[in-house]
Amino acid sequence: MTPEEFRRHGKQAIDWIADYLAGIESYPVMSQVKPGDIRHALPSEPPEHGEPFENVLSDLGRILLPGVTHWQHPGFFAYFPSNASGPAVLGDLLSSGLGVQGMLWVTSPACTELETVVVDWLAGLLGLPEHFRTDAAGGGVIQDSASSACLVALLAALHRAGADGIDRDYTLYVSSQTHSSLERAARIAGLGTAGVRVVDVDQDTLAMDPGHLRALMDQDRAAGAVPAMVCATVGTTSTTAVDPVAAIGEVCAERGVWLHVDAAYAGVAAICPEFRWLNDGVSEYADSYATNPHKWLLTNFDCTVLWTADRAPLLAALSTLPEYLRNAATTAGAVIDYRDWQVPLGRRFRALKLWSVIRWYGAEGLRAHIRKGVTLAAELAGWVAADPGFELHEPHPFGLVCLRPLWPGLAEEEADRATTRLMELLNASGSMYLTHTRIAGRVVLRMAIGGVATERRHVEQAWEHIRWEHAALSRTLPRTLPQTLPQTLPHE
Amino acid sequence: MTPEEFRRHGKQAIDWIADYLAGIESYPVMSQVKPGDIRHALPSEPPEHGEPFENVLSDLGRILLPGVTHWQHPGFFAYFPSNASGPAVLGDLLSSGLGVQGMLWVTSPACTELETVVVDWLAGLLGLPEHFRTDAAGGGVIQDSASSACLVALLAALHRAGADGIDRDYTLYVSSQTHSSLERAARIAGLGTAGVRVVDVDQDTLAMDPGHLRALMDQDRAAGAVPAMVCATVGTTSTTAVDPVAAIGEVCAERGVWLHVDAAYAGVAAICPEFRWLNDGVSEYADSYATNPHKWLLTNFDCTVLWTADRAPLLAALSTLPEYLRNAATTAGAVIDYRDWQVPLGRRFRALKLWSVIRWYGAEGLRAHIRKGVTLAAELAGWVAADPGFELHEPHPFGLVCLRPLWPGLAEEEADRATTRLMELLNASGSMYLTHTRIAGRVVLRMAIGGVATERRHVEQAWEHIRWEHAALSRTLPRTLPQTLPQTLPHE
Repeated sequence: MTPEEFRRHGKQAIDWIADYLAGIESYPVMSQVKPGDIRHALPSEPPEHGEPFENVLSDLGRILLPGVTHWQHPGFFAYFPSNASGPAVLGDLLSSGLGVQGMLWVTSPACTELETVVVDWLAGLLGLPEHFRTDAAGGGVIQDSASSACLVALLAALHRAGADGIDRDYTLYVSSQTHSSLERAARIAGLGTAGVRVVDVDQDTLAMDPGHLRALMDQDRAAGAVPAMVCATVGTTSTTAVDPVAAIGEVCAERGVWLHVDAAYAGVAAICPEFRWLNDGVSEYADSYATNPHKWLLTNFDCTVLWTADRAPLLAALSTLPEYLRNAATTAGAVIDYRDWQVPLGRRFRALKLWSVIRWYGAEGLRAHIRKGVTLAAELAGWVAADPGFELHEPHPFGLVCLRPLWPGLAEEEADRATTRLMELLNASGSMYLTHTRIAGRVVLRMAIGGVATERRHVEQAWEHIRWEHAALSRTLPRTLPQTLPQTLPHE
Repeated sequence: MTPEEFRRHGKQAIDWIADYLAGIESYPVMSQVKPGDIRHALPSEPPEHGEPFENVLSDLGRILLPGVTHWQHPGFFAYFPSNASGPAVLGDLLSSGLGVQGMLWVTSPACTELETVVVDWLAGLLGLPEHFRTDAAGGGVIQDSASSACLVALLAALHRAGADGIDRDYTLYVSSQTHSSLERAARIAGLGTAGVRVVDVDQDTLAMDPGHLRALMDQDRAAGAVPAMVCATVGTTSTTAVDPVAAIGEVCAERGVWLHVDAAYAGVAAICPEFRWLNDGVSEYADSYATNPHKWLLTNFDCTVLWTADRAPLLAALSTLPEYLRNAATTAGAVIDYRDWQVPLGRRFRALKLWSVIRWYGAEGLRAHIRKGVTLAAELAGWVAADPGFELHEPHPFGLVCLRPLWPGLAEEEADRATTRLMELLNASGSMYLTHTRIAGRVVLRMAIGGVATERRHVEQAWEHIRWEHAALSRTLPRTLPQTLPQTLPHE
């Protein structure tokens, strides 16, 4: 494809996306296709001869679009938002167009240096500690996901704990509310599920109990194990519960254990002064901290930022053949080779999209976006609380509202099936997409607000629809109940 | 940014890229900035108020571009090519615009099903075994990099070998020519460097010695260790050496050890019938196989395809809470949840770019691209072989040519410094970018041909420039020699 062909087809692609975004409300939020529908609509053999780019665009609309679940739809309330704002998409486009591979500083200095600048910017915007900045002992890096960030943190923690091979038992501490990627990281890093300790949570707030953490840790140490890392969560996936970072950090500090703070969803809210409390304890205790601009901060996936208070153990854990590869500039701190900060070697120029987002919106625009989500969620929570047909889960400090429809006369397990059935009906309607979780064993609907296109009217319509469908379903119960509960799905 | 603003700025971004690509030869291939130049040219604080998108574009050209090393420049011969063709960039753009997150089938069925179709297409195009197809027991998946692919393969291998915790010593077998990401995977997975065995290579071909592999493995088993995986490489990073996969596979099969084939660079050449020999032994012995369309197959980073002959151990190694998350459709094989096939949970719609590339070029266009690189490399190799001032490394079956300038009268170490100096002068000229490696201890220049814009005239000009600079430098030696050798850098 020549530059001139690229110019022509590129504008077609831009028009396609602009039209898609302008008309997105006309699509069912959640794809309604059945397994295999898309696959069987596509040719089983690749073309021998090249085709016009227009064919790709027309098949995208004709074949693929019915199989797309529209994460940018204003009625998308599932999981967490995964915003793809205009400036983010265009920053990513420029990155693809430049086509640089930024594994080392020397393979494209701007790729490394812009990344350092924007993660330092973001640390400042969120009020994260000065020692997370690259000019100090720490530093930030863009990862593909919070899963990878917690794996990298665990590897650094294991290195600092002295793990160098497989001769001791190392342990990782999470709660029942911690994201499943932590258990996965433990399995990847060779600790296995046997190395994961699940700390109790407070039954109301669902926050980790520092007293139980202390007890578990001391018990493990007495048994000869080496506690390597604790993961505290600021805004859990299930209900946005906030672990007491300072109290957890104190336990870690007393015992020299690495504290990783997973603020994947909620951390970006600290851009607003009224949410600065999210960072309580981070400055004093956190060895590493991760948040995802690709969730609630208008930057398209993938863009997780991981900061560390001390980059030395991270680099020691991940640098390959360090004696052979080190050079004066790196050792002096004049140059960063981000390949040493992540699992893969190669890396895209992801800083461009975050840079583009921060410049287009400015700090005030980013704060306004967070506040819009929080305001809409608070409004929804008010409606739920005022409705005798529903129970609201408290607290709901961010954009997520968890609500439980009530089904008078039904036993708990029947009620859970009714709630699930309600969710299926709502999702099948095409007007919204919700997911669920369990709180104290009961099925609860999650409604995550914060999509870039979501306005008050969408939340209002969704709530009206939920109430209407709840009332309609209530009238037919229990004869329309499904016999089994579907499996719970994970959230990113 | 409204859809209409996106339309306007998107076309500006497309024009920017088209102009960049049309004028790319006017830039020095390798960025000539010094550490900190770019960083210090950028504001240290983010903007409080939003800015026009035009500011991003103008700062991209004014501040960042001098810090960009131009991987798409026709004079880029460093590392391996990392092609960003037009259809790939546009496929990626459409993925960003849709903004779907494909962790589960249900979160966007088309994202999963198109991926299955295109990796099956690619398996067919490359002549890979039928059992790598998803309809059989195996299956393919797009990973971000060959590093992640080999980590995933190692985790599957460890699972199959019975590793479930840290109670035995597991071993991984590589050669001195294996990519450093394998050692890194061993460290990430908790084997440590202590678990990595380095098998001898043939001194001429630099291919792994299956006899030594057998001896090492039996020695480890006698000592109580469990051999978990062997990595055979088809086209090593240093010199594109090809390990004897069939002979290695026989050793693995006798002992039930997982064989991973790393064909990151060279594997895609099998799209041409004359390179189908690259797959020798793969059908009979390979448990997993990876190649990178993001190197030589016109698809922008990141796009590595990993196939496995049996997806069960891979899923068992990476599924979190398998009992809890499994559902009838997944178990029946009707639905794939690709989050279980990779380290991160979230995933972009990367299949779109590979689909766009295959459709735009067609199989014949992809073959023509590979053949162009091979032909140009063969021609260059002929010129090198015919020149008494240089020594050619044989064989050079693909797009990489390794050449050693001769420096009559200089001792080996002085000659290595002269070669390095020559490379620095060439790279500083801005007209080309080369990297180096060591063969039998001697510094050798690597010239990797296969960039999307590289034509015969660029190779010819580069060769003339190398000869001219070599002659000029020879006249001033030894007084212009640097006192130390620079560090060797890794290749992706």
